[in-house]
Amino acid sequence: MPSVLGHNFIGGSRSAAGNVTLHSVDATTGEALPYSFHQATPAEVDAAVEAAEAAFAEFRQLSPERRALFLDAIAEELDQLDDDFVALVCRETALPAGRIQGERGRTSGQMRLFAQVLRRGDFLGARIDLPLPQRTPLPRVDIRQMRIGVGPVAVFGASNFPLAFSTAGGDTAAALAAGCPVVFKAHSGHMATADLVGCAIVRAAERSGMPKGVFNMIFGAGVGEQLVRHPGIQAVGFTGSLSGGNALCKMAAERPQPIPVFAEMSSINPVIVLPEALAVRGETIARELSASVVLGGGQFCTNPGLVIGVSSLAFSAFVEQLQEQMAAQGPQTLLNAGGLRSYAKGLEHLHGHPRVTHLAGQPQHGNQARPQLFKADVSLLLEGDELLQEEVFGPTTIVVEAADDAQLIEALRGLRGQLTATLIGEPEDLQAHQHLVPLLEQKVGRILVNGYPTGVEVCDAMVHGGPYPATSDARGTSVGTLAIDRFLRPVCYQNYPQALLPAALRDSNPLGIRRLVNGEWSEGGIG
Amino acid sequence: MPSVLGHNFIGGSRSAAGNVTLHSVDATTGEALPYSFHQATPAEVDAAVEAAEAAFAEFRQLSPERRALFLDAIAEELDQLDDDFVALVCRETALPAGRIQGERGRTSGQMRLFAQVLRRGDFLGARIDLPLPQRTPLPRVDIRQMRIGVGPVAVFGASNFPLAFSTAGGDTAAALAAGCPVVFKAHSGHMATADLVGCAIVRAAERSGMPKGVFNMIFGAGVGEQLVRHPGIQAVGFTGSLSGGNALCKMAAERPQPIPVFAEMSSINPVIVLPEALAVRGETIARELSASVVLGGGQFCTNPGLVIGVSSLAFSAFVEQLQEQMAAQGPQTLLNAGGLRSYAKGLEHLHGHPRVTHLAGQPQHGNQARPQLFKADVSLLLEGDELLQEEVFGPTTIVVEAADDAQLIEALRGLRGQLTATLIGEPEDLQAHQHLVPLLEQKVGRILVNGYPTGVEVCDAMVHGGPYPATSDARGTSVGTLAIDRFLRPVCYQNYPQALLPAALRDSNPLGIRRLVNGEWSEGGIG
Repeated sequence: MPSVLGHNFIGGSRSAAGNVTLHSVDATTGEALPYSFHQATPAEVDAAVEAAEAAFAEFRQLSPERRALFLDAIAEELDQLDDDFVALVCRETALPAGRIQGERGRTSGQMRLFAQVLRRGDFLGARIDLPLPQRTPLPRVDIRQMRIGVGPVAVFGASNFPLAFSTAGGDTAAALAAGCPVVFKAHSGHMATADLVGCAIVRAAERSGMPKGVFNMIFGAGVGEQLVRHPGIQAVGFTGSLSGGNALCKMAAERPQPIPVFAEMSSINPVIVLPEALAVRGETIARELSASVVLGGGQFCTNPGLVIGVSSLAFSAFVEQLQEQMAAQGPQTLLNAGGLRSYAKGLEHLHGHPRVTHLAGQPQHGNQARPQLFKADVSLLLEGDELLQEEVFGPTTIVVEAADDAQLIEALRGLRGQLTATLIGEPEDLQAHQHLVPLLEQKVGRILVNGYPTGVEVCDAMVHGGPYPATSDARGTSVGTLAIDRFLRPVCYQNYPQALLPAALRDSNPLGIRRLVNGEWSEGGIG
Repeated sequence: MPSVLGHNFIGGSRSAAGNVTLHSVDATTGEALPYSFHQATPAEVDAAVEAAEAAFAEFRQLSPERRALFLDAIAEELDQLDDDFVALVCRETALPAGRIQGERGRTSGQMRLFAQVLRRGDFLGARIDLPLPQRTPLPRVDIRQMRIGVGPVAVFGASNFPLAFSTAGGDTAAALAAGCPVVFKAHSGHMATADLVGCAIVRAAERSGMPKGVFNMIFGAGVGEQLVRHPGIQAVGFTGSLSGGNALCKMAAERPQPIPVFAEMSSINPVIVLPEALAVRGETIARELSASVVLGGGQFCTNPGLVIGVSSLAFSAFVEQLQEQMAAQGPQTLLNAGGLRSYAKGLEHLHGHPRVTHLAGQPQHGNQARPQLFKADVSLLLEGDELLQEEVFGPTTIVVEAADDAQLIEALRGLRGQLTATLIGEPEDLQAHQHLVPLLEQKVGRILVNGYPTGVEVCDAMVHGGPYPATSDARGTSVGTLAIDRFLRPVCYQNYPQALLPAALRDSNPLGIRRLVNGEWSEGGIG
């Protein structure tokens, strides 16, 4: 097994000033792993933020190319994390090796994609309005704008993607790309993984000549609160529960200087099954959908937690097929014991509701999560019942049957904000249900047609976001390159001497980037 | 005098269901004007939001060209507001006619500039990642992204720009451009102005065929709270005091569904006077600076409230010149009696501080604001004393003398977030003080060289924003075309049939806009 130090990462060094130690657990057996992690002391939390602040001044002013080289170096280090590393991640998370290998590639690919964004340069949002000295009644002076990083970012990773949404995950990549040093709160569910990934980032920082403190990581329970309250932190990225995200938003809003929080929280990801598709390929849909529900133990933010359609013979047949499929799914080990407890509790709530019927699944017991299928009365959606709106994190989904198209619309209107909505339909279904799209656009961040929401492509056009409670800020995404926007803010330079302007705004356009000059896009220099 | 109905604007009609009436006041004499305004009842506030919600579905889906035509029509209607209108605005605000005429042009120009943004189309943020069916291990499906309006926006205008930052001001223009209907809370300081401008917007909406409810306006005290808490409102734009902005942010955060608030609040806009400039043209600077301090009664968000330099003979001479200049400035009528009371209170706090010296200005009394000059000990900045950080809204500024360059930096570091910072310097000054720029970039939204912060150009590159408490969200601006971004959010379409895609994302690029296709910018169609 790899050697794991378990000390906090502060300003390029390791630190273990405190006496409280934490342990990492084998997710399958519950046994403690032979590593201990030193909870950061209050002084260490401060030191981590101060290291990030000290690094910010230099880091944000490095050329985009220098930061791109850093991200490329992180990608290389991640790719070199070997089979022993993968085995350790699997022990901490109970996820299969193939999945972790894939996630490793996804995580390094994400870094490389942000390096491309840096090289393209449009993230700088350069805008130039040249002077109009002859304008009446008043001349216009030279005015230029570009975006800079907001400052040190606190990142809280997710349990369910120990690589892609964690230490070197999307929030870290977006923040570093934006020129913002990171203080990462290591996830208690995979501290050994976090330690090894942290080392990879620090090696990359060293060999690409980054300022110490560009990446910091603290271990411990309760240290996140101090982190978010520290005046040096200027934004927060978070992936996790609704209650956790809400608590962070509240803390951030109550600071003497409030800061933005980008929390990706709770989504039930409705799948709308349309009649012709059910008639033509109901059985296939039932098979594919149940595979999506149980994928990775159902522990995806985009897990389809609600399946809705209009009453018909085909719909009834489809529900029966889904019942068969779900009944055939085996139990799975979840990421951690806390997740299993939450899952069991969520199932209890569903079992206890008089208008929810259990359709398939063995009684939940033991150390593994048993896949379940429920059916809820449509009135729960129409009345905005809380139960149906809350994500049950695990291999479960709920079927809802609307009486007719009008009721389907009303039921969808009753949904809160979501990461995704999916339409399963034949061409004629989609044509006939076009009126649903404007409603879905207002409810979700991503609309899929004839696919399943699990599996989020990392690309320029992806949106992994959506109205509250899917996220705390629908204007952002936590997957895809637009994620960088969350950590940038515009600064304007008025009547500024050429020689002192940032490179992105100089007449000669030394970075060769695309700029809005006098209202027109241009890639060349000026004059 | 123009006829003014004084009823609320709801869904294209006028409504006066309540019994509470309010009156508008001649700002110079304090006399009530012969108009009464009907405070919106709770039912009317709801109706205004519901009208905006009903309009949203249609309005946001209009082509950018249709919305541009609407903004153009508003601009025409504003330009046609005549001399009687100008005279009435002057009575409500005590601002001179020339200023209001200029502001009318600025306000219509702002509408036309947003129309240009709509026609350029890049506000849509269109991104397309084409499918990669051969990719291993998994193919990529077709993924496309564009931005849509967030939903109905509540706008609270400012007292100090009754046209440009009010009913048809920058927030309204940006929201309408983004496809978001507006519910405007009429400012109590200029309700007759608001009524006439509201009528102009409604005329424009009618003749350009906009849905009823695209613009709504309510009168009254306390109605803003209900407005912000209404579930139909999806974002808030505000210009005003720090306490007012903070209260709105708190309300918005406490909603069952929190929403973003873009509040432009408090800024003291430091002006840094550098030694060589003082030696060469100290007297000119003193004259120009005092003119900027008293411009418009000092009632600008960007009024220079702090003048800071390093101790020297030239600095002392400059302070004496500034003293002479400020002593020579006459009293001015402020926008309203509340403003004058706040001004007097702010001066009292300055007079009462043991480390603040009064340098020039007649004792404050009577119905007008008397310009003042103070000097504060640099220790107030070094210690972060609240007094110096708070905007005194009116014709006053405070001089601070740093012992040396190192202390100047420390003093600037002690500043909170600002809309602007200004460097007054000769080329050698600017060269020698380059190290200040990174610090200022972190503190402010706009850095000016050899100019004065009053007078905010409306253009693509402007930033009228900045870190808290200058605004509640440093990632936005409330002047300039980037303001539209505050009211947009991205939506992603995955594996979507061509025919059902929004025009902005279709292969043929029917809008002819710039799009990011497979990571490269393109203006043509695909395939």
